[in-house]
Amino acid sequence: MQGMQHPLMRLTDENTIIRLLQKRYPATNASIEKGIGDDAAVLQLRGAGERWSITTDMLLENIDFRRKWTTPELLGRKAIAVNLSDLAAMGARPRFFTVSLAIPSDIPESWILKFYDGLTAPEASQGAQLIGGDLSRSEGGISISITALGESLNGKVLYRSGGRAGDLLYTTGILGRSGAGLHLLQTGHASRRSRSRREALQSHQSPSPRCEAGLWLAQCGFVHCMMDLSDGLSVDLPRLCAASGAGAELLLEALPVFHESRQWGCDPVELALHGGEDFELLFAVPRSRRRALETQYPSNFPKITAIGNLTGNAGRIWMSAPGKGRRPLPERGYDHFRRETK
Amino acid sequence: MQGMQHPLMRLTDENTIIRLLQKRYPATNASIEKGIGDDAAVLQLRGAGERWSITTDMLLENIDFRRKWTTPELLGRKAIAVNLSDLAAMGARPRFFTVSLAIPSDIPESWILKFYDGLTAPEASQGAQLIGGDLSRSEGGISISITALGESLNGKVLYRSGGRAGDLLYTTGILGRSGAGLHLLQTGHASRRSRSRREALQSHQSPSPRCEAGLWLAQCGFVHCMMDLSDGLSVDLPRLCAASGAGAELLLEALPVFHESRQWGCDPVELALHGGEDFELLFAVPRSRRRALETQYPSNFPKITAIGNLTGNAGRIWMSAPGKGRRPLPERGYDHFRRETK
Repeated sequence: MQGMQHPLMRLTDENTIIRLLQKRYPATNASIEKGIGDDAAVLQLRGAGERWSITTDMLLENIDFRRKWTTPELLGRKAIAVNLSDLAAMGARPRFFTVSLAIPSDIPESWILKFYDGLTAPEASQGAQLIGGDLSRSEGGISISITALGESLNGKVLYRSGGRAGDLLYTTGILGRSGAGLHLLQTGHASRRSRSRREALQSHQSPSPRCEAGLWLAQCGFVHCMMDLSDGLSVDLPRLCAASGAGAELLLEALPVFHESRQWGCDPVELALHGGEDFELLFAVPRSRRRALETQYPSNFPKITAIGNLTGNAGRIWMSAPGKGRRPLPERGYDHFRRETK
Repeated sequence: MQGMQHPLMRLTDENTIIRLLQKRYPATNASIEKGIGDDAAVLQLRGAGERWSITTDMLLENIDFRRKWTTPELLGRKAIAVNLSDLAAMGARPRFFTVSLAIPSDIPESWILKFYDGLTAPEASQGAQLIGGDLSRSEGGISISITALGESLNGKVLYRSGGRAGDLLYTTGILGRSGAGLHLLQTGHASRRSRSRREALQSHQSPSPRCEAGLWLAQCGFVHCMMDLSDGLSVDLPRLCAASGAGAELLLEALPVFHESRQWGCDPVELALHGGEDFELLFAVPRSRRRALETQYPSNFPKITAIGNLTGNAGRIWMSAPGKGRRPLPERGYDHFRRETK
């Protein structure tokens, strides 16, 4: 329920909105283990051994993407990826999805074919099967809404809540690479002639949701809480802290940033904090399990990096850098109601 | 998967599109009892005693509705109704739903509040709980996509397939009343000063999905196949026939039409055939069970009417009227890719 807008609020603050919506529509049904406010809702259906996670995410033309900056196949891949990333954050295995697609009349059939090819490519859908949906003309731009269902393994699900003061914070992969890819597109440098450009563009146009890693982390027993980094560390970390009733300290020098973006005039640390759309996993592990986690985590999975720790100062999020001391983390990630169009 | 567009086709024929999509994305997973091509997908999840139906439907501004012709609360009610009607068609009990809402920046907070009020009003959501969703700014108009989940009772689900030659065709309620309401709005006669106007406008702006009747019909054991009438009898009946490998004969004089629309210059039979959005149920019952059905069907439910029968002439759909003989049913209902904007 990221992006959900509480009616009584100015259209400015997603976090406040989510908290208010949670109050307005509480989970009053015994089958609902988690309603509004996490990466996905979680259901314990009568008789079913496993828990089911359900998530919905939209991609809108000129808000979330520009047609000229992507291809229909890449757009299909991204549309399913942003949903599977929410399932990864719960530790759920992707199983089924539906897709609503609204398209303006100037879209040719070949575009639609390639969009569905991208959406259903095995490496993109990661085992999730297309089971239905809806399609319509649009008078505006392209509008894509996907709902994905994932199944737990051994009943294990991770939430944003559950983190404790002292827990180490980890992230998978590299942060700020997708933002660097967006920068290349925005500045008209989208040629793929170098490896670093290809990597940045791929992170932005066709991210790889961390489903395998998410599943492993839910199974390993070390992890207290988890979420995916969709809107940027500076927006998402406060959400994890709020759900866990904790604060955090971030070590900027520890962030797995995308150094190559410096050559394009970017600040890699700024992109890691605020760029958004990395679709990596953020999770917390008790300090006592650091060694167990780092030795047992499969070496062929996306690398994990400790980037700070949770504290008992609920809601206070600090970042520190060598020689620069400690200062509050400014929240400048992607907010659908605040930031300019991509 | 109504409205799904097959990429290789001209954007003209939903039925062809659905058949081609069914082939392109077959249900290859043992948990998928029904994939693309019915009112909802049906899943038999490991361990779960009941079957789960999942449906997705969009409402788009200036395609499916105009802001000036409705209120946010009525729009919320209609958005959930069109999805619950698909669950009703399976005989499923509404349980959960997610909503994606994209809104232009000129929408005030009060509008959004009322939309959610409509969406979650108990008589509108019929027991289905809002469990999550997504919300975003839109650069076009309002875009609403809902995914609803329903649970079977005693494992019983009805499909569009299963009808046999000789079965009697029934519909619930009144046909063409929603189309009459749309006519009132289109011609600027939306005052509610007479009962018939109020009924027509309510059918169009805030339809009542037939969940209770659908559940009863799935449980009673008489019904061979069922679907909901969303695009109009002339579009939907051929779909039921195609799924059942049957033809049909429709008795025009038997149709439960909305006679009051004649005073507004409408042809009630034309509206019943082609108006669309009645969200009544169409179902087939063996002739031998007619008496059992009609005596056992609860008298406090929306009335049911026999309107014709299935035949062995696959794909041939005839309509007959006293003194006018028999002629093929022209297909002129609502097709999102063919008809003008509402």
